[in-house]
Amino acid sequence: MSDTERKPQRLIRADSWRLVRAARFLLERGRTARLKRLFSRLHPADTADILEELDDDSMRSAFDLLEQEAASEVLEEIEDRDLRALADGLSDDVLVSLLGDMATDEAADLIQQLSPERAERVLGLIEPEDQEDLRRLVAFSPETAGAIMDSEFAVVREDALTAEAIEAVREMADELEDIHYVYVVDNAKRLRGVLPLHRLLLTPPGTPVSKIMITDVVTVPPNLDQEDVALLAQRYDLERIPVVDTDGIFLGRITVTDIVDVVSDEVEEDFSRLAGVDDEELHERSVTKISRLRLPWLFVGLIGGLVSAFLMGKFQASLEEVIVLAFFVPVIMNMGGSVGMQSSAIAIRGLATGEIDPGRLMARLWTELRVGFINGLATGGLLALLAGFWQGPSIAIILGTAMLSVNIVATVFGTFVPMLLKKLGFDPALAAGPFITTVNDVVDLLVYLGIATTFLAHWGA
Amino acid sequence: MSDTERKPQRLIRADSWRLVRAARFLLERGRTARLKRLFSRLHPADTADILEELDDDSMRSAFDLLEQEAASEVLEEIEDRDLRALADGLSDDVLVSLLGDMATDEAADLIQQLSPERAERVLGLIEPEDQEDLRRLVAFSPETAGAIMDSEFAVVREDALTAEAIEAVREMADELEDIHYVYVVDNAKRLRGVLPLHRLLLTPPGTPVSKIMITDVVTVPPNLDQEDVALLAQRYDLERIPVVDTDGIFLGRITVTDIVDVVSDEVEEDFSRLAGVDDEELHERSVTKISRLRLPWLFVGLIGGLVSAFLMGKFQASLEEVIVLAFFVPVIMNMGGSVGMQSSAIAIRGLATGEIDPGRLMARLWTELRVGFINGLATGGLLALLAGFWQGPSIAIILGTAMLSVNIVATVFGTFVPMLLKKLGFDPALAAGPFITTVNDVVDLLVYLGIATTFLAHWGA
Repeated sequence: MSDTERKPQRLIRADSWRLVRAARFLLERGRTARLKRLFSRLHPADTADILEELDDDSMRSAFDLLEQEAASEVLEEIEDRDLRALADGLSDDVLVSLLGDMATDEAADLIQQLSPERAERVLGLIEPEDQEDLRRLVAFSPETAGAIMDSEFAVVREDALTAEAIEAVREMADELEDIHYVYVVDNAKRLRGVLPLHRLLLTPPGTPVSKIMITDVVTVPPNLDQEDVALLAQRYDLERIPVVDTDGIFLGRITVTDIVDVVSDEVEEDFSRLAGVDDEELHERSVTKISRLRLPWLFVGLIGGLVSAFLMGKFQASLEEVIVLAFFVPVIMNMGGSVGMQSSAIAIRGLATGEIDPGRLMARLWTELRVGFINGLATGGLLALLAGFWQGPSIAIILGTAMLSVNIVATVFGTFVPMLLKKLGFDPALAAGPFITTVNDVVDLLVYLGIATTFLAHWGA
Repeated sequence: MSDTERKPQRLIRADSWRLVRAARFLLERGRTARLKRLFSRLHPADTADILEELDDDSMRSAFDLLEQEAASEVLEEIEDRDLRALADGLSDDVLVSLLGDMATDEAADLIQQLSPERAERVLGLIEPEDQEDLRRLVAFSPETAGAIMDSEFAVVREDALTAEAIEAVREMADELEDIHYVYVVDNAKRLRGVLPLHRLLLTPPGTPVSKIMITDVVTVPPNLDQEDVALLAQRYDLERIPVVDTDGIFLGRITVTDIVDVVSDEVEEDFSRLAGVDDEELHERSVTKISRLRLPWLFVGLIGGLVSAFLMGKFQASLEEVIVLAFFVPVIMNMGGSVGMQSSAIAIRGLATGEIDPGRLMARLWTELRVGFINGLATGGLLALLAGFWQGPSIAIILGTAMLSVNIVATVFGTFVPMLLKKLGFDPALAAGPFITTVNDVVDLLVYLGIATTFLAHWGA
């Protein structure tokens, strides 16, 4: 909760678009004074949202209208792509002074968007103490605890009294909008405990902090994947997670608002992979760039389709003998695709949330196999019945058997691939969408045409 | 951050499964004393996780081993399905006393899992004041701000001095693990401002709270969709959101840990719909229940497949004349499916996050149409080239044209349906997965066979 006078617009979707249109209109007409006044009343998150909708040149002109403090807050909110474009338009001096006003994790993020040479040059211009903090943050791999922690917090030594802890809060109060805890460390900066502000408020000033601090604190190492940090936070309802290294040295803390972003980014990523799209596309306005992001997935599908076409060519004799078999290719492929998608989606989310135990591959496959069997009987039975009425008993038998087989193959395949990837240390979501769908299509077609040909060879049409 | 002595296990996926196996082992051998000791050392979230993995009877026996306080905390953490099963095994008296120890939003959740008669009976046994709070919460529609708020907070009147605010904090300190703000209301209980604890800590005790409170507070009405609450919290990095009614009366507040759950639930829901699965399946162990959750989607696909088969029957003459046309049905359907999935996934997420403006349908369709055109040229060109070498120029022209058309049709269709649903007030994700895929399949096939037949009729094979 910020006590800035720039009012959050409480924007809910549609409203925010009205504001974007108003800003674009003012900018196009060159009414910069009015735009400046508009920005001065907006929350930085709303301003950032407007800037993101403008082309790079307009975005830079609009950004130049912001006051220093607002400008650094807007940089904290803006998407990486636009951050890069904005930073390119700023001089080193301006950038350094804006970085000084930003939260350290966001400042580190900005520096990582610069070219290595510029990053080094800009870092060199920052005051030694802040520079050290930033260099440490920049060094952590992206998407780890170290990369999303920040280093602004109130801290006292374990032999301090509550009065000193209150002083520590006072010193941070200008810099931080929200202070909920005071961190307690020993001489070697090892984390000893955490002191919630309400305990500080309710305890006489002469009490040793070590008497009222919480010692059983959930901490994370800096190299922990941010997804695991988020799972911990969700599991234990944590609002602040201290990051400590292997020696127990207190490095920084992760706030729950960062966790919210991680949670939505990670599920969003799985969603995108399942659909064969790139997360970045949502922030992309250029048609050719969108095309370029989507095309690789389509080529994967195209190659799979060509393999299927080639396979059907191999079964040309059966197809020419009984053209009806070709009619049901869409039925088989649709079913195989849907079943494979269901199983792989469950495996991917189950592995991500921990609901599925990656150590119990065989048990999981056994479950899926039985589900595939039941659903294969249900859909195969219905298909055999309908197709039997339409095209006679031979087709009914072929389709029923193929449908059952495809259900079993697709459930097992859709489950096996993500779990295998997980075991090999890859992201199971990599397997989702186009890849599983494409291989699955080919396998299902082979099963169907194989069954049909075998049946025709033995019993005729 | 809890100061309970039950230690969080800092469980990251695989670890938690080891614990589940240990608990199951102890339970099977009837070593209840050891299991009780294990539970007494565990964080309630970890205990809940173990219980969720057991069958209903074992879960109830294990739950009976918990101390009163731990039992109510475990109820706050456990999945709805298992909550129902546990509540069914408890007497009204036990349930009422457990409810008394739970956070109000979680208690309301539990009551909503009971049969209407039992809910009424249990509510009647609760002390009048708490009963009123609970009845109000239970009355809000699920998935709204009112349903996820709770009513434990420190509150003072606007004419109070800081000393009284500190007293309010003291009164709540037993009940709440984390107190970050004191809420300031007027005589009519209208919210006037919010007072962060660090301001209280740094201000002399005789100061009027109205002098140091924040007055520009983002609030939400109780009927606001929880997804919109989460978007607001993400946008403005809010950790507490007060809920006020149309008269400005302060009803309760939503904590950021609830927001984290909402964010992950909502994206999870979109993900599940895209894949044609039900979110509930992840917590489901019974094979027949999993089958039942998946089958409706498969039947949708089956019907679509049968329509496709019927369509191909209508084009039997063309297919018999040029059997090669049938070979390429998988190519066309795979491409149409992938393209439609990409466009609808982007539309669904874009609408959910506000990146896509539902008011600008035509602009969005125009973007997608151009993307479809470019990708259609790329994939159609490649396909025509490869198929031309294999099957000659007629097939190349038919396939190239069909591929281009299918790309355009599928991008436009995949975008149009979610945006239309949004405009009509439905959840755009409803359109995802099986429904869009199935209709899209049929349309794409029609486009392909239509183009092929027209071509053959005019120019022959």
